[in-house]
Amino acid sequence: MGREFLNLVDISEAHRIIRNLFKEIYHPPRMEKVNLKNAYGRVLAQDVKSPIDLPPFNRASRDGYALKAEDTFHASEDNPSTLKCIEVIEAGDIPQKKVKRGCCSRISTGAQIPEGADAIVMVEYTEEDDNILIYRSAYPGQHITPKGSDILRNDIIAKKGSILSPEKIGAISAAGISKVPVIAKPKIGILSTGNELIEPSNDQTPGKIFDSNSHSIAAAVKNCGCEPKILGIVKDDYKELSKAIREGVLECDILITSGGTSAGAGDMLREVVQDNGEVMIHGISIKPGKPTLIGKVDGKLVFGLPGFPVSALIIFDVLLRPYLMELSGKTPLGYHTIELPLAHRLHSSKGRIHYALVKVKNSKVYPILKDSGAIASLADADGYIKIPKNVEILEEGSKVKVSPFLPYEC
Amino acid sequence: MGREFLNLVDISEAHRIIRNLFKEIYHPPRMEKVNLKNAYGRVLAQDVKSPIDLPPFNRASRDGYALKAEDTFHASEDNPSTLKCIEVIEAGDIPQKKVKRGCCSRISTGAQIPEGADAIVMVEYTEEDDNILIYRSAYPGQHITPKGSDILRNDIIAKKGSILSPEKIGAISAAGISKVPVIAKPKIGILSTGNELIEPSNDQTPGKIFDSNSHSIAAAVKNCGCEPKILGIVKDDYKELSKAIREGVLECDILITSGGTSAGAGDMLREVVQDNGEVMIHGISIKPGKPTLIGKVDGKLVFGLPGFPVSALIIFDVLLRPYLMELSGKTPLGYHTIELPLAHRLHSSKGRIHYALVKVKNSKVYPILKDSGAIASLADADGYIKIPKNVEILEEGSKVKVSPFLPYEC
Repeated sequence: MGREFLNLVDISEAHRIIRNLFKEIYHPPRMEKVNLKNAYGRVLAQDVKSPIDLPPFNRASRDGYALKAEDTFHASEDNPSTLKCIEVIEAGDIPQKKVKRGCCSRISTGAQIPEGADAIVMVEYTEEDDNILIYRSAYPGQHITPKGSDILRNDIIAKKGSILSPEKIGAISAAGISKVPVIAKPKIGILSTGNELIEPSNDQTPGKIFDSNSHSIAAAVKNCGCEPKILGIVKDDYKELSKAIREGVLECDILITSGGTSAGAGDMLREVVQDNGEVMIHGISIKPGKPTLIGKVDGKLVFGLPGFPVSALIIFDVLLRPYLMELSGKTPLGYHTIELPLAHRLHSSKGRIHYALVKVKNSKVYPILKDSGAIASLADADGYIKIPKNVEILEEGSKVKVSPFLPYEC
Repeated sequence: MGREFLNLVDISEAHRIIRNLFKEIYHPPRMEKVNLKNAYGRVLAQDVKSPIDLPPFNRASRDGYALKAEDTFHASEDNPSTLKCIEVIEAGDIPQKKVKRGCCSRISTGAQIPEGADAIVMVEYTEEDDNILIYRSAYPGQHITPKGSDILRNDIIAKKGSILSPEKIGAISAAGISKVPVIAKPKIGILSTGNELIEPSNDQTPGKIFDSNSHSIAAAVKNCGCEPKILGIVKDDYKELSKAIREGVLECDILITSGGTSAGAGDMLREVVQDNGEVMIHGISIKPGKPTLIGKVDGKLVFGLPGFPVSALIIFDVLLRPYLMELSGKTPLGYHTIELPLAHRLHSSKGRIHYALVKVKNSKVYPILKDSGAIASLADADGYIKIPKNVEILEEGSKVKVSPFLPYEC
């Protein structure tokens, strides 16, 4: 006879329990320092302040001559000022000479303004002779970007919680910072259980099927900003599973297993978790995913997902993704639904929330009617819809909310 | 006197030239095989077909007894069929015995159906005695997923050009495939030029500024699905720049330099590219980015971006991003604009297309009015708007299209 589940909980109760567990176990998130070269896409764990003024000196914003504005006040095309060039200052140079009345220094964009100069006249309005002829007047401050006018020392350049975009990385490096404090990527161990499983790199073997959950879940974990660690395939053997789980929680923050949670003869995850820790949830009134298990071993969370590939990914999306994204500091960007009409009538099973894979075509939602063991449906699906537990039939044309499988960026 | 640009081209002409260059030089894209573990987010270079049927055998979709349906046709609660159990088949086992009339085999979900059996009766409707009592009738095929019903051998599992999502990776691994052909990540070399530049890891030095473009451009390159290689800072020295560019094109597909393109005294990129190859564009009628250079050295494209951080990133976004994304096989997802009203009046420079940084707040667009040397504006901006070249003033409230800096995922 099939084994009973502990207590079937509903989905909102499951979320309440999981949310509390994450808060209790994984808060506050770990921090690490990474080199700016590896910081793209990471999430800042602290505000980043500038240790310097930017620009760090009064800076020329044009090519021209640095001079005293008062020397040019009456300059015009017909009546140029004549100044003596005392120095050539390229970007990166340290000006050596002070600019006095009657003098000027040739200066390049980006170079430091020499002492004494308070304006720049663009090279276009000058002529080089023995001396320099200045054909336009300048106002004090002209074409000079003052020290600290962009960012002042101790200004916040990028806020805690922000994702390190190219723009933010540019600003941080401009302040001379080469390492940044980011939220450490939570390490998620992934186990597949089942005597029938073999690695995709092997040859096909009678009676066996290739393990796909390890690989699909690892990719979904990456998408949440976490670091997956594939721990391999474990046989439906109490000792082996127990060992794998005890070792897994040592090196990972969270453990995800798939398979081994239905009431089959090879089922033993619940016993293993119970004997090594605590089972918090076993059985949720949803379809697929009823046999989902959530427990704690060595103070780390262990999630037991169903073995069928479609079920495993949907349950991951519903029960794990929001919390993993929060844990890694990623706002669930684009974690939204799209409302569209159903292309044809759909039957559901009353009494459980039902998640059904769908394809979207011509702004209509086509349910994919294969069972949750079907892989093809997975590769083909655009997302899934959630059918409330009191609904048995959804009519053609009725509006449903599609949770899209996101456009995955890397 | 400032040097002249070759021929100022307009933006649509620049795009036409760049598009043709990419087609001529980088088509078709390179392919590589990667392990499934590293395939997440990559783009398939070829269709992936299944080498096997899925499921690879007739598979039990329930726990129960595999039997001949005809043995159960008259079974009921009051009048069970009595069958002899000849074998226990777990998932992963190879069935050893043929099921004949009057016999059955205990079977687990996912296990191979034994020869002779054509149906499964769920364990819930049976009772174990000396023999097995079957309380329900079964129809032929009941709870059996036929071999190949999910995917047939040679079916396409994932199409060329598709991004390897968790779902697609799941389907591919289920077919026993462990390596996939993906578009090779184009390698983009990044040089920063200027005597004034030092690495952010160094101490602050008089007259110098920290190089930010290398790091912001590297991040932007990653966002396009390409692989950045930071080649370091090069002095404004003809020989040094020439060497860096010649070496850079050897190991990279495309070279991006920033700085050294304005008419300053230290400017020499154009000469270097001309002497080592060909300059196709020097000067585009846009603001910022007028001094942008596009050339070819050793058959590889060289892009000379402006030195100011804001200008460099905007020009990257306008002129490089669409082509790099196409090259890496990523559809420019979310590469869209959002139309919103301007929060206040904005002046532009007539005669050139003007890209202005903006911040979006309360569904209004606030132009950021700092010069393009300003870093703070960069960290703070949400995107930019494009102002046509014949427009001098945009009134408060007029609708503008914001190109958002994307939410960067990793």
